[in-house]
Amino acid sequence: MQIFDKLNLPKFKKGEVWLVGAGPGDPRLLTIFALYALSEANIIIYDALVSDEILSLSSRDAILVYAGKRGGKPSHSQENISQLVIKYALEGKKVLRLKGGDPYVFARGAEESFILNENKISYRVIPGITSSIGGMASASIPATSRNTNSCILFLTGHNSNGEMPDDIDWAAVSKIPVVVMYMALKHLPVIIKRLILEGKKKDEPIAIIQNATLITQKVLESKLNNVSKDIEKYNIKSPAIVILGPVVDLRSKLIENVIKDAIT
Amino acid sequence: MQIFDKLNLPKFKKGEVWLVGAGPGDPRLLTIFALYALSEANIIIYDALVSDEILSLSSRDAILVYAGKRGGKPSHSQENISQLVIKYALEGKKVLRLKGGDPYVFARGAEESFILNENKISYRVIPGITSSIGGMASASIPATSRNTNSCILFLTGHNSNGEMPDDIDWAAVSKIPVVVMYMALKHLPVIIKRLILEGKKKDEPIAIIQNATLITQKVLESKLNNVSKDIEKYNIKSPAIVILGPVVDLRSKLIENVIKDAIT
Repeated sequence: MQIFDKLNLPKFKKGEVWLVGAGPGDPRLLTIFALYALSEANIIIYDALVSDEILSLSSRDAILVYAGKRGGKPSHSQENISQLVIKYALEGKKVLRLKGGDPYVFARGAEESFILNENKISYRVIPGITSSIGGMASASIPATSRNTNSCILFLTGHNSNGEMPDDIDWAAVSKIPVVVMYMALKHLPVIIKRLILEGKKKDEPIAIIQNATLITQKVLESKLNNVSKDIEKYNIKSPAIVILGPVVDLRSKLIENVIKDAIT
Repeated sequence: MQIFDKLNLPKFKKGEVWLVGAGPGDPRLLTIFALYALSEANIIIYDALVSDEILSLSSRDAILVYAGKRGGKPSHSQENISQLVIKYALEGKKVLRLKGGDPYVFARGAEESFILNENKISYRVIPGITSSIGGMASASIPATSRNTNSCILFLTGHNSNGEMPDDIDWAAVSKIPVVVMYMALKHLPVIIKRLILEGKKKDEPIAIIQNATLITQKVLESKLNNVSKDIEKYNIKSPAIVILGPVVDLRSKLIENVIKDAIT
């Protein structure tokens, strides 16, 4: 594409691995760099959260390899995925490792990079829009707003074993005005109990964004002590982002004149 | 462009305002949506952190209006910028309001959206890669890594008056393993003193990324109690992102086999 020439995109060389963020889901939120990587790669090893619409932008003769840990398909271990990536790189393929969101934000991209570096594979990391920030904008919930919050915390609600992470200081988290949680639906009742115990108000505004930025996006607004009930009532499922704090209330000041179209 | 048709991009209608994130600086990290907005807009009102290289992607007959608050050019107030945006929208122009990074992350985009909504202007918010996450990836510092941090905090080091924000709970911030600071160079000595007082270790790893993702990017690695001296020694200037925490030390495990090219 002409735009690729104009922007001086680098050659995707044989034996290189490009670890690329695909953004929150809406293919229009791919970066130009990601689009280019898709068009140049021989092998694309992609995660569960990368949509078919995004994969359809790959070159016709690229081989697509599913490496997600979700849904009905057979599942790879993290170690397997890295070995697969290395195998293809050593075979001289142009390997695109494609992850939803940003590869370095709660996506285990750092682990994959460590292994690439240890194995002396030339690699590149191309950031993507992280799903929470993209999803919040798409749901008309600003991440920050003057007079509302000068800081925002992002946490993951489960670790690599599917348990609650044990290194989070919930007392400190409860003092931060806006808290955004990735993969938190499973443990949300426990997290809520913990946050209330540490001082978060029971009627603190909370929102859940399911399928952020996609045509199937659903936004639930609730209060901290009601949200578990509401999640059930409105049948909210993963993948979803949880936003806790006063920015949720700003949505009502923004939503009326926002343009809605087929995708967002 | 063909890709725009393929991705079903919406019509940019007369009288609409699109509030768009331009990402951290590298034009290859623009989203497809932002690239499309640039090619369709009649008027582009852009901030100081939007590069000429990005602006060069606009259509040839677009009018470019500088609305930054930095550098030698005359400066607009926030209120003026919104009035300007509204004026052009009411004249029936396709108005692109282009901001560095993400419009809803420490960029006063929410304020601009409130005013658009109040004035019943149809508008759209298109997220961009926020400069810290993009910059960290570009500097080989993962935002998160398993075994290192299950949460990360983002804060702004100055408020709209250029002072330190007065709504940050520094005791809580000091308990968070990884803290990323926007626009923090000016008040960094005060912030450091505060964080050490609240319990952060004096030898906590810290990095400063100047001109993140651009060819002029500089990365300084230091320790919390040495960094002010090092900033002076290595002549680090704004715009810069500050990263505090153990993820900074991961850089040495990543940097060797990362591909470097003309831009990143």
